[in-house]
Amino acid sequence: MFAPQLIGFVRTPYSETGDVPRGLGAKHEAEGDLDILPEFEAGLTDIEGFSHLIVIWAFDRSQGFELYGKTPTDGLPHGVFATRSPRRPNPIALTIVELLGRDGPRLHVRGVDMLDGTAILDIKPYLSNVPKEKLRRGWLAEAETRKGK
Amino acid sequence: MFAPQLIGFVRTPYSETGDVPRGLGAKHEAEGDLDILPEFEAGLTDIEGFSHLIVIWAFDRSQGFELYGKTPTDGLPHGVFATRSPRRPNPIALTIVELLGRDGPRLHVRGVDMLDGTAILDIKPYLSNVPKEKLRRGWLAEAETRKGK
Repeated sequence: MFAPQLIGFVRTPYSETGDVPRGLGAKHEAEGDLDILPEFEAGLTDIEGFSHLIVIWAFDRSQGFELYGKTPTDGLPHGVFATRSPRRPNPIALTIVELLGRDGPRLHVRGVDMLDGTAILDIKPYLSNVPKEKLRRGWLAEAETRKGK
Repeated sequence: MFAPQLIGFVRTPYSETGDVPRGLGAKHEAEGDLDILPEFEAGLTDIEGFSHLIVIWAFDRSQGFELYGKTPTDGLPHGVFATRSPRRPNPIALTIVELLGRDGPRLHVRGVDMLDGTAILDIKPYLSNVPKEKLRRGWLAEAETRKGK
């Protein structure tokens, strides 16, 4: 297996886990920056044409994993692969952000939910949606219904 | 940084890179299986409620990376972070699949585009779409226009 390498850092308004909005109905509207290391800047060529990016990052302040455990979203236990829990076998996270602008190796984006200083592993263009009429969201939709959201 | 660990293997009809449909308008309708290792099966609890999953996997037959290079899609060079090229600084891939059924540690899915035997790193539930009216797809949309697609 490969050895993950850092390609940059995320700059966000969140310095502690408790600062990041979470739970049912949490909105991720915060703006931040993806600061790509200078040696990887050439990889950003033509990225300005995409409105949305998939940021793959490391849960670098999470330790160990729990295959089945309670989530803060509904207080009930679920399998880790049915959740976004940071305590996963591979501490890999992804966030969809809206690209607002680029200044050299810095991408200004909306929708960050990472802690400030988080390690970026990859960026990919967001290309397509799942047909809305086919999308089912399991326990999360049930929790929203219970809460009347 | 963490050391990636294998959580399972993908079973697909594709034994060589040339077998995977790619380029403009390529459809990924092939069915396959995500075979999760028995020791991680508890992490699949409640996954049946989700129609679509994000599979994070390793480009385990790709070597090295190229920050700026031609893609087979339009024959023009683009930055690697504006493409889905396998030759990335971190050889991490993702594919959105539709979950058709589960048989213990085996998830039967539609939409695989990996080679048979590819290493799975993570599975996450697909939760939401980007608003269609806000989505722009840069060089890819331009290439589609040129091809009249």
